[in-house]
Amino acid sequence: MDLQNELMHHLEDSEDEMIEIRRYLHAHPEISFKEKQTAAYIKKFYRDLDCQITDYGDGYGFVVDIDSGHSGPKLGLRADFDALAIQEDNDLSFKSQVPGVMHACGHDGHTAYLMVLAKHLIALKDRLKGSIRIIHQPAEEVSPGGAQSMIADDVLKNVDNVVGIHVMSSMETGMIGYHFGETQTGRSNFTVKFTGKGGHASMPHLSNDAIVAGSYFVTALQTIVARRINPFDTASVTIGSFDGVGSYNAIKESVTLKGDVRVMKESTRKLVRKQIEQIIHGVESMFGVTAELDYDDNYPVLVNDPKLTDQVVTSLKAANLPEVTEVSDCGPQDPSEDFAYFAQKVPSCFFYVGCMTDDHANHPHHSPDFMMNEKCLLIAAKAAGTVTLNYLMHA
Amino acid sequence: MDLQNELMHHLEDSEDEMIEIRRYLHAHPEISFKEKQTAAYIKKFYRDLDCQITDYGDGYGFVVDIDSGHSGPKLGLRADFDALAIQEDNDLSFKSQVPGVMHACGHDGHTAYLMVLAKHLIALKDRLKGSIRIIHQPAEEVSPGGAQSMIADDVLKNVDNVVGIHVMSSMETGMIGYHFGETQTGRSNFTVKFTGKGGHASMPHLSNDAIVAGSYFVTALQTIVARRINPFDTASVTIGSFDGVGSYNAIKESVTLKGDVRVMKESTRKLVRKQIEQIIHGVESMFGVTAELDYDDNYPVLVNDPKLTDQVVTSLKAANLPEVTEVSDCGPQDPSEDFAYFAQKVPSCFFYVGCMTDDHANHPHHSPDFMMNEKCLLIAAKAAGTVTLNYLMHA
Amino acid sequence: MDLQNELMHHLEDSEDEMIEIRRYLHAHPEISFKEKQTAAYIKKFYRDLDCQITDYGDGYGFVVDIDSGHSGPKLGLRADFDALAIQEDNDLSFKSQVPGVMHACGHDGHTAYLMVLAKHLIALKDRLKGSIRIIHQPAEEVSPGGAQSMIADDVLKNVDNVVGIHVMSSMETGMIGYHFGETQTGRSNFTVKFTGKGGHASMPHLSNDAIVAGSYFVTALQTIVARRINPFDTASVTIGSFDGVGSYNAIKESVTLKGDVRVMKESTRKLVRKQIEQIIHGVESMFGVTAELDYDDNYPVLVNDPKLTDQVVTSLKAANLPEVTEVSDCGPQDPSEDFAYFAQKVPSCFFYVGCMTDDHANHPHHSPDFMMNEKCLLIAAKAAGTVTLNYLMHA
Amino acid sequence: MDLQNELMHHLEDSEDEMIEIRRYLHAHPEISFKEKQTAAYIKKFYRDLDCQITDYGDGYGFVVDIDSGHSGPKLGLRADFDALAIQEDNDLSFKSQVPGVMHACGHDGHTAYLMVLAKHLIALKDRLKGSIRIIHQPAEEVSPGGAQSMIADDVLKNVDNVVGIHVMSSMETGMIGYHFGETQTGRSNFTVKFTGKGGHASMPHLSNDAIVAGSYFVTALQTIVARRINPFDTASVTIGSFDGVGSYNAIKESVTLKGDVRVMKESTRKLVRKQIEQIIHGVESMFGVTAELDYDDNYPVLVNDPKLTDQVVTSLKAANLPEVTEVSDCGPQDPSEDFAYFAQKVPSCFFYVGCMTDDHANHPHHSPDFMMNEKCLLIAAKAAGTVTLNYLMHA
Repeated sequence: MDLQNELMHHLEDSEDEMIEIRRYLHAHPEISFKEKQTAAYIKKFYRDLDCQITDYGDGYGFVVDIDSGHSGPKLGLRADFDALAIQEDNDLSFKSQVPGVMHACGHDGHTAYLMVLAKHLIALKDRLKGSIRIIHQPAEEVSPGGAQSMIADDVLKNVDNVVGIHVMSSMETGMIGYHFGETQTGRSNFTVKFTGKGGHASMPHLSNDAIVAGSYFVTALQTIVARRINPFDTASVTIGSFDGVGSYNAIKESVTLKGDVRVMKESTRKLVRKQIEQIIHGVESMFGVTAELDYDDNYPVLVNDPKLTDQVVTSLKAANLPEVTEVSDCGPQDPSEDFAYFAQKVPSCFFYVGCMTDDHANHPHHSPDFMMNEKCLLIAAKAAGTVTLNYLMHA
Repeated sequence: MDLQNELMHHLEDSEDEMIEIRRYLHAHPEISFKEKQTAAYIKKFYRDLDCQITDYGDGYGFVVDIDSGHSGPKLGLRADFDALAIQEDNDLSFKSQVPGVMHACGHDGHTAYLMVLAKHLIALKDRLKGSIRIIHQPAEEVSPGGAQSMIADDVLKNVDNVVGIHVMSSMETGMIGYHFGETQTGRSNFTVKFTGKGGHASMPHLSNDAIVAGSYFVTALQTIVARRINPFDTASVTIGSFDGVGSYNAIKESVTLKGDVRVMKESTRKLVRKQIEQIIHGVESMFGVTAELDYDDNYPVLVNDPKLTDQVVTSLKAANLPEVTEVSDCGPQDPSEDFAYFAQKVPSCFFYVGCMTDDHANHPHHSPDFMMNEKCLLIAAKAAGTVTLNYLMHA
Repeated sequence: MDLQNELMHHLEDSEDEMIEIRRYLHAHPEISFKEKQTAAYIKKFYRDLDCQITDYGDGYGFVVDIDSGHSGPKLGLRADFDALAIQEDNDLSFKSQVPGVMHACGHDGHTAYLMVLAKHLIALKDRLKGSIRIIHQPAEEVSPGGAQSMIADDVLKNVDNVVGIHVMSSMETGMIGYHFGETQTGRSNFTVKFTGKGGHASMPHLSNDAIVAGSYFVTALQTIVARRINPFDTASVTIGSFDGVGSYNAIKESVTLKGDVRVMKESTRKLVRKQIEQIIHGVESMFGVTAELDYDDNYPVLVNDPKLTDQVVTSLKAANLPEVTEVSDCGPQDPSEDFAYFAQKVPSCFFYVGCMTDDHANHPHHSPDFMMNEKCLLIAAKAAGTVTLNYLMHA
Repeated sequence: MDLQNELMHHLEDSEDEMIEIRRYLHAHPEISFKEKQTAAYIKKFYRDLDCQITDYGDGYGFVVDIDSGHSGPKLGLRADFDALAIQEDNDLSFKSQVPGVMHACGHDGHTAYLMVLAKHLIALKDRLKGSIRIIHQPAEEVSPGGAQSMIADDVLKNVDNVVGIHVMSSMETGMIGYHFGETQTGRSNFTVKFTGKGGHASMPHLSNDAIVAGSYFVTALQTIVARRINPFDTASVTIGSFDGVGSYNAIKESVTLKGDVRVMKESTRKLVRKQIEQIIHGVESMFGVTAELDYDDNYPVLVNDPKLTDQVVTSLKAANLPEVTEVSDCGPQDPSEDFAYFAQKVPSCFFYVGCMTDDHANHPHHSPDFMMNEKCLLIAAKAAGTVTLNYLMHA
């Protein structure tokens, strides 16, 4: 397996470059749908390389096509590059230079490892089979996400399968996690506004208290997960925002609530939505308020294709990468991911590379002190490189 | 005021007879709508007296007409004679001889004082003006009550006004209480059955839990009094029965709840009913259950006619009865009373005669240890006699 | 009653002046505790009159003492002069010139009529008995109110009784309303913050949802009025603000609720407070959250002294003022009033002068389109003048 | 595999006997802990066979020991023999002859197949290795179950592993289902009585309404599954009984609720219990009621040993039994099973044999019309026989 060894050595030699790129991105984060400079920076990296760059979708997304010139399978490798509206609270030389914006989920790392891997795959491309489409995706963090419009723009036209990686600060560095089938939750969001009638606190009978209606709504919502969902299935319903801000002595005319739903099956998503709608109608009848509901079914359940995942896992185990201490089923993951849209279209596999810091401290994703063990970059590059070579050469 | 003095003396002389009659009735109670022997007993008392006995209504109710032969106003005096389905828990020589049935509200006393008063009014009738209709009413305790069918049968045809008395164990013996206008609550009762779908406790998603629907219903009901009623008005809504009896491991298919509503205005009654109906519809929508509602608006608010009440109070105060220590406004009373139906038809007055025992112990109405201070019998007879003479002679 | 006629004529002649003053105040409103210019304006009016001006309390309150020089009773007449933080929405030549501030409760009118009445009483003072203390009170609208600190500063030292008037846009102009005993509600306000644990919406088990705790709290609060209060008593409990503003995908760590309580008895106030505290403790146990409660018992129940009120009503009825169409018991009023503090210290009477516009349109107090029929100014002045003369001269 | 073929043929020849036994048991059901005649009937079957019968536990449980005389592994085979307190609603020649008692879960079938299988294993025993303990267990249906006391009495002393079968009317006949690891839910039951204060419906302030407290409890319970449980874990909490039976016009003094909890991890069981206790304490604080809680953690989670289960599945698949159409993972099952106690002590495997009737009609377990396709008896016997031979001979 010369090609494998060669690629691994090239990646080892490029570890510093990955770190450098990642730190540059970390210092210059841009929020979802606004990643203009980030995209320009990445494209510049590819400028003199033997590849094809094409924009896809409504945002700043683009692909880098690496064609071996030989027939063979067509693999997509996807990394996202948007940051979050979070003020970084770390003391780092490459700390975010943009107030209130931070790469707090590791997308800087995803992009960095994939750029360097792509460079080496381009260099080796004549010895490969088939083709590789490097998918640099924007706006993963915010619904409707960046994947959908790229797909609508036919980004998967010549792609048989897509593979993606997420770094995970809750997994030890050296661990690679995977799961078969339903792997990350699908998500819906909704906003509901209940309108009653305002008035003076001393005269409740002349008003219709929207805070009361909203509160009973929240208590009734609890029955969905508690009574409607098969105990062996997965669902959560959260009211993340209850805006009933007012004053002591006035009865609130209206309240606005924002909700979040997570599921592991599309049938559960439908069931939950129907129940939420029923409960809202019930609140309307019960309290004589009117409700305006804006319901957004966004990211699907991320379903890893069993066959492709098996192939990914087998190749990773077989590779015996020295930096990898464990390749194991990490179970399903709570968050939602718009990689799920790729997986809806073509059989795909999304897996996890541990990035816990050496001191095992807690640096959760989406927190102001999120931190990545940069050793994960080389591991991710090697893992994705291994999977790619195995996929292309042994298909 | 010779006639007044004469009547009062006759009543004093008959105190033992009142007590004897009351004790007989107490020992032989019959529940509402089943008072056959009681009615026969009372009628027998009048057999040889110079009066007219006529049955009215669907039950065992009847009147005793006392006609002075002279023109004048026409007064109704009403006493009820039914007992309750309560097992007496007193140690009395004249304790109830009927298991599970008891005169626990004082109707035995009402009937006893009025029989004796009637006897003396009959004896004096040629010296009176106008006429007196003694209304012996059954079934006050249980909706629809005995008054309605008597009224439907025209019991008030030749009656200008009605006066009634209730003994009150919470008032000291010697006290007479009254109130103008809305004096006792109106009442509605309802039964609602929520039907979902039964099933095994380990599979809630295949069932539809009626206990959950019923429980949310109870919590939502609280908003009616708390938010819909003018804080200066009066209302109560009680679920007195929640029948969701089942087993540990089965989800209940249906639950049946019984509710009680009290109001002091007919408009409030309508408002509460509308709200209850809305909340029930809301529960149906919210939880996908079906509801069957049986709603019974029964006893009206008892409204004392201000003019008649003023006349009653004035005559009671003027009489200076030695047994009466106080004649005062006792405020509105929580319970409901089907005397209210008489008061809907003709201007009426219902007032209260204290019957607290001398030791001031607590013997609440409708409790197994209800007890009456029998001194109240003479007081009630004198009060009703005074009011009657004043009404007839000074009209 | 020469004096009476004379005063009435003077007031009639001064109607334009009252309107002019009221309009000036209306155009230049200042919110509670910030009424520096208003106080200065009123004081300037009295500058050259034969009276004594003395500041009282922590704010801009002051009194104008009118001493007849003869012995006699000592009456306080109180008017408040603060405005509200409301943006006026009327199209008037004298519309508020201060953005976001408006005389939306009629205190401009109270002050205007009383200034002009005071001027005439000063002119007549040698012919009066006793003394009059004109109490110009700031900050009625906002707890702790302006009355308390004036009282603490001994403003009632030489005052036997206080009389106050509120204009009422819900009563027809020409009507004077009064009530005996408990006349306006007492008020408490509270703020409660429930703190759980924040987290990601997809992982509820790692968080403790404060919105859920707050919502169940609101539903449990409903039981206080529904189950704990005598149906013949008065209470309301309102959550006027539920601040649980957050985002879709995060579970709220804490929510802050603001509550308002109204009662007609101080015993009810204590009962409600105890129940709220119990429910808060229950929420803490139930949901494992911590609660911080800040509870403020502010304005007392306003209790009109029966004897003084009778005297006020009798004199108003006897005066047969041509502008007054009706003097009647208007029942208790829902809002709270810090005049209640005066009434706690000395027997007092607070009554109402209708100020409905001629087109009978709805212009509620505290609304952006509050409007007063300026005819009420003369009526209020005549009513207060009549009461004052009767009080001083016929004591 | 001569022995295997021979046993299979013997079983085929005995199919009628299995059916006969099953029908006898079906016609003569006895409820849990009362199965005296059933045990006697089974024992009589073994009377003249070459085996050892020993009683175990507090009830009617016993074992049949089959010793090959050669060294080897020691396998337990368990079948339960109790019936349910259900009135059969089937029209069968062998319908239950005991009013209100029915084999509505298939234990008659479990016992019948195992008796006949045991008979043949006894006949072949000299050619086997190791030993077989046939465990005839009573009282599976009712906590604390029959298994516990047999285990306490050392029934597993010489048993390395236990295998059990349940027939499943929701699976097609011919299907064999299995699951690795957590396979059936653990269960807890609780009874909670809330006591407030009774009283008259018209005077709620003098009472403390236990129905209200109980209802809020039910709504708060919903938050446990909805907010406290990892969405990837399993739990259900059901109130199966809400006894608040009363009358319209009285406020209930106390209510008694019965609850059922299901979990798939013992840690979840502890978590749910703690939450229920917290909510109960919360209800006490919130509503001033007292609670009496009786909490019974009964059947554990049934955990199939992965290694033994793999061995069972492999041997079943290898056997290619003609009656078996499918051997597949059927996922975890909702109900609880006291086989779980055996599995806590020694590595065990519990699997499922489809018994759906040929018309595919719905005959749910524990329903009055439960029905079993008797073809399942031979399948169960063959499956258990195959597993046993494979276990003993190829260990």
